[in-house]
This record gives sequence, structure tokens and C-alpha cells, in this order.
Amino acid sequence: MIILGLDPGFATIGFGVIESEKGKANVIDYGTITTSKDLTFPERLMKIEKGMIALIEKFKPEQIAMEELFFNTNITTGINVAHARGVMVLVAARECPGGLYEYTPLQIKQALTGYGRADKQQMMQMVKTYLRLDKIPRPDDAADALAVALCHSQTNRLGSLFRIK
Amino acid sequence: MIILGLDPGFATIGFGVIESEKGKANVIDYGTITTSKDLTFPERLMKIEKGMIALIEKFKPEQIAMEELFFNTNITTGINVAHARGVMVLVAARECPGGLYEYTPLQIKQALTGYGRADKQQMMQMVKTYLRLDKIPRPDDAADALAVALCHSQTNRLGSLFRIK
Repeated sequence: MIILGLDPGFATIGFGVIESEKGKANVIDYGTITTSKDLTFPERLMKIEKGMIALIEKFKPEQIAMEELFFNTNITTGINVAHARGVMVLVAARECPGGLYEYTPLQIKQALTGYGRADKQQMMQMVKTYLRLDKIPRPDDAADALAVALCHSQTNRLGSLFRIK
Repeated sequence: MIILGLDPGFATIGFGVIESEKGKANVIDYGTITTSKDLTFPERLMKIEKGMIALIEKFKPEQIAMEELFFNTNITTGINVAHARGVMVLVAARECPGGLYEYTPLQIKQALTGYGRADKQQMMQMVKTYLRLDKIPRPDDAADALAVALCHSQTNRLGSLFRIK
């Protein structure tokens, strides 16, 4: 099964595509969708829509896993990311009906390390190990997206899914 | 010129359509797009996209005015509204290129009453008066949408526009 993992963002959205088969996961591709500051706010949302459509058309994921949104200290950034994530959820639901799932950062950490307090570096190492990569994927947004895709493949296998309600 | 005013929301989006000509504004229609709690989160965003497209196809606005988002005390509601507003901005920009403007609540109050501290009731009265209506439009979301449309028609006439950047 092809799984598309997404790390929501406004300037940078991470994506990671894996193939999950019998508990083993292989990386297919990873990277980012970026929106330039030179674009207007609506243009950036349109670029996110186009980027999402292109990803789904290219990799034809059966399921999409997305990190849940938590507000950190920067409320302005948070509002922008929530606007962008609205577009991401819309496009994912439209182009991949019934195949959209979300996970909290805690769920992702627990799925990958069995430990909710794993730090960033430990998480990145687990992504590298699970996918048998030579290096930790860069940038972080792409590694985070691979992490949520891996989390979904693990959780899927264990039968406890978190479909977006 | 046909102006579509929008009051962002997740469960209820207000819309108000006016025709503005030589400083005089006439109401064309107003109402709400609603999304049921029985739908999933992605389904609600898809319903907002469909509702927005239907409004734009029906009334063919040359310009769209939308209230800016401010976070109040309920952060969860705020995140949902920001997701929904992302979809609204996306669809408006896609279907009405270059015609999208946003205003803060303060700008709307000032445009309608010349007074930034006008209360809800005063604002509703001004909407009724400007549009020569028999009653204050209901529900509030629709009246708020008419207010932002009127604000845009006033500001447009005075030549100081607030295009969404």
C-alpha cells in the first residue's frame, strides 16, 4: 500500500511517500512543497492546492496521513498554517476519498520509538533505520512527513486507525 | 459592481451579496452556508468549497470582501475556523482572480459608523439603513457578511483597498 505522509506548513510542507507491505516499509520519495514570500496569501494557498494535487496524481496514495495541528507560541504563524492545513485536508479528502488519517505528535513518537518523549534526533534516527536509508532525510519537514507515514503504516498494521473526524 | 461579502466560519459561514453603484448599495441576496456536525471534518471543508463555488457561480461577484480572522478565547473553534477560512480564501482566489479583499472588524465598524467602537446592535442598524431594508437581516452571520460587503463598497469608493496580501 502506498502511503503519503504530510507535515503541514504554510511556507514549507513536508511530504514523504512510502510503500508499506507486511510490516515492512520502503521509501518511494520525499521532499517539500514550498510557497514563496513573493506570492500573495491567496496565491500561496493556490500553490499548496496545486502541489497537493500533483503529489496525489504522481504517487496515487491509497491513504494519506497528516500530522495534527497544535498551536505553539507564534499565533500568527499558527493561523497561517491552519489556513494552509484547511487546503491540505480539502484536497486530500477530495482526491483520496475516505483515505485521510491524522496523528498527534505524541502518537507519531510512540509509534516510532515506543516512547512519547523521544527527541527530534531520536525520531530522525528511527526514520532512517525503519526505511534503511544511508542518511537522515533532509529537510526536517520531509523527515517529519516520513515519520507520520511510518506511524500510519505501524498503526494500520495494529488495527487502530485515527481517521480525521 | 457586484460584491460578495463573507463572514468566515466553520459551522456557519455568512454571505451577503450587494450591488454597489455610484455610492449607493442595493441588497441582492444574503444567507448562510452551513456544515452539519454529522459530517466528518474533511466533508465539512468540502461542503464549504462546494457552497463557495455555488455562490460565485450564481452571483458572479467582481470582488469578494472577507472579514479577517482574529482569535478569541476558544482556540479549538479558532483552529477550525482558520481551516475553513483557508478553503474560503482558496476558492475565492481561484474563482474570482485578483478580486479578494479583507478587512478587520475595526475597519468594518469604522466604514459603517465612522466609529470603531460601535456595538453589534448599532452595526446591524447601519446595515439595515444603508441597504434600506425593512428589518435587520438574520441570522447575524448574514448581517455581518453584508456589513463587510458594505465596508468594501465604501472603501472602494474612497480608493483605499485592503487586498489580501
